[in-house]
Amino acid sequence: MSDTKPFSELIDFIRSETDRHLREMDLPCEPSYLYEPIHFALKGKGKRLRPILVHLSGRGFDAEPVDLMHAGMAVELMHNFTLVHDDIMDNDHTRHGQPTIHKQYGINEAILTGDSIFALAQLMIGQVNSIPAFQVFNKASLSVCEGQAFDLEYENDPQITLDQYLNMIGKKTGELLSLCAELGAILGHKNEIVRNEMRNYGMNLGKAFQIQDDILEIFSDVEQMGKSLGSDITAGKQTIMTILAKKHDGWDQIEASNEDISSKLNRMRTFFIETGIKNRAEEMSNDFIQKANSSLLILKDDHRDTLNQFTESILNRTY
Amino acid sequence: MSDTKPFSELIDFIRSETDRHLREMDLPCEPSYLYEPIHFALKGKGKRLRPILVHLSGRGFDAEPVDLMHAGMAVELMHNFTLVHDDIMDNDHTRHGQPTIHKQYGINEAILTGDSIFALAQLMIGQVNSIPAFQVFNKASLSVCEGQAFDLEYENDPQITLDQYLNMIGKKTGELLSLCAELGAILGHKNEIVRNEMRNYGMNLGKAFQIQDDILEIFSDVEQMGKSLGSDITAGKQTIMTILAKKHDGWDQIEASNEDISSKLNRMRTFFIETGIKNRAEEMSNDFIQKANSSLLILKDDHRDTLNQFTESILNRTY
Repeated sequence: MSDTKPFSELIDFIRSETDRHLREMDLPCEPSYLYEPIHFALKGKGKRLRPILVHLSGRGFDAEPVDLMHAGMAVELMHNFTLVHDDIMDNDHTRHGQPTIHKQYGINEAILTGDSIFALAQLMIGQVNSIPAFQVFNKASLSVCEGQAFDLEYENDPQITLDQYLNMIGKKTGELLSLCAELGAILGHKNEIVRNEMRNYGMNLGKAFQIQDDILEIFSDVEQMGKSLGSDITAGKQTIMTILAKKHDGWDQIEASNEDISSKLNRMRTFFIETGIKNRAEEMSNDFIQKANSSLLILKDDHRDTLNQFTESILNRTY
Repeated sequence: MSDTKPFSELIDFIRSETDRHLREMDLPCEPSYLYEPIHFALKGKGKRLRPILVHLSGRGFDAEPVDLMHAGMAVELMHNFTLVHDDIMDNDHTRHGQPTIHKQYGINEAILTGDSIFALAQLMIGQVNSIPAFQVFNKASLSVCEGQAFDLEYENDPQITLDQYLNMIGKKTGELLSLCAELGAILGHKNEIVRNEMRNYGMNLGKAFQIQDDILEIFSDVEQMGKSLGSDITAGKQTIMTILAKKHDGWDQIEASNEDISSKLNRMRTFFIETGIKNRAEEMSNDFIQKANSSLLILKDDHRDTLNQFTESILNRTY
């Protein structure tokens, strides 16, 4: 497929190819205790943002398409493994438009399903036949676990600082996008300078994306997000909004109030707007986007344009 | 260290070196939510049977000691990951002489701890710099998950056959020992014929070991096993004893009885002896040992002698 095709067609193509390869993975049926939930998890309507980034990064470096497909699927599988386990830990009920695995099948089934999808991810990255790819893949997988651990450790802790929050979202969301962007460079046999810029691009994009996600959790509508709103705040999670709100008078009372979630959410919205917290969070997200895009200056024009479009499209949530 | 040293000294040396390397692994302290339970899990008094097998297999094939250390640690880490998660699923309270991770820290912590130890295992096998080693490592990790799934799926199912049971223990216990024996051959650059015999050795050894474990669960004393007896049977697990007992009159009544566990265990002991089930299970274990040792005929005398001693020592539970 040529890069002259419109960006959205390219994205659709990569997504449908990724979906097809995931569907056609050579998995046994037995034990059904394990493979039924695995099939269920993988048929969820994921946006496949991460494999798309692997492809968009790697195509511009002339990486082999077959390697990019394997690497993209490996990252998508790893991402799905973390979702299955995170949903148990956070007791979330819905994911990708269907029940979470532990709600549909049980906690034991969900633990094993996550473990096995992780093993499948390893087998997939092994197909790429590149030790550096394999090493960055697993450094990232450990970082994602650390990010989730920080997320749980920080719950309901009023002392958490902005730096701690940014470190946490860097590990939880940044590392995986960083991995995707770097894998493209590794599979295109680029040097450490390029790999480093691609890592920075993914990391900053991830932080921008997570901050924006925190804002949308409060300010979007349910249809737009595809999940219940305010659930992070109810669960005592650290978000950019609560981190910035701590310094403001009046926040403690809102947080402590026992009113129902929808009127609490309305009060929060007004508070975040009037105090300028919403603006401040949006500025931070924009700063990370600018940092992300500045890493792309090292690239050839076509390649940079494509990744700039990717940045824009995921932040506009056009898919 | 020379192979002329007594076998037990060699084993002690490999175990203490493995323990030292595990202790000295370069792990961060933060998030303590994650790394405290990881340290706790890894300091348990494991027997390190699997790394020992990697070394004993690989030394005779002149594999590099540093590769064997990395591969052995990787297998031990993978084994520990499965134990942490299995203990959640089976709700076991004690492991390696200390509380299980979910009992000591909580279920979320234990899920993440297992995940992270699995990621550490991947980083460790990546140190070996061998794609074949990496591929067999992850095929085995998926098989172990499948084995655990069969184990849970088969609970309290009276229809499970001997073949199903043997397939289940092959995956749950055999595959990991099979991996250890094969890794030695891979790291010694041996051909497919040798690799295959080593795989068979480990698989049959694993089945013998598991059958013996099932027998000991009923017939040993608590000190010898280091865990509570009869717990598998109470949990409705399939064991070689219950599989063989199904065909015998009188078993249904014993199984259904509501008496306390110690008098039930006594009744079972008498039943298994009088019906010849204990003998039959012992014969099956011996058959697998003979099969295992016949695979070693391909090896040089010294190498075969060492592995024969390993077979004997793990079945005699001398450590």
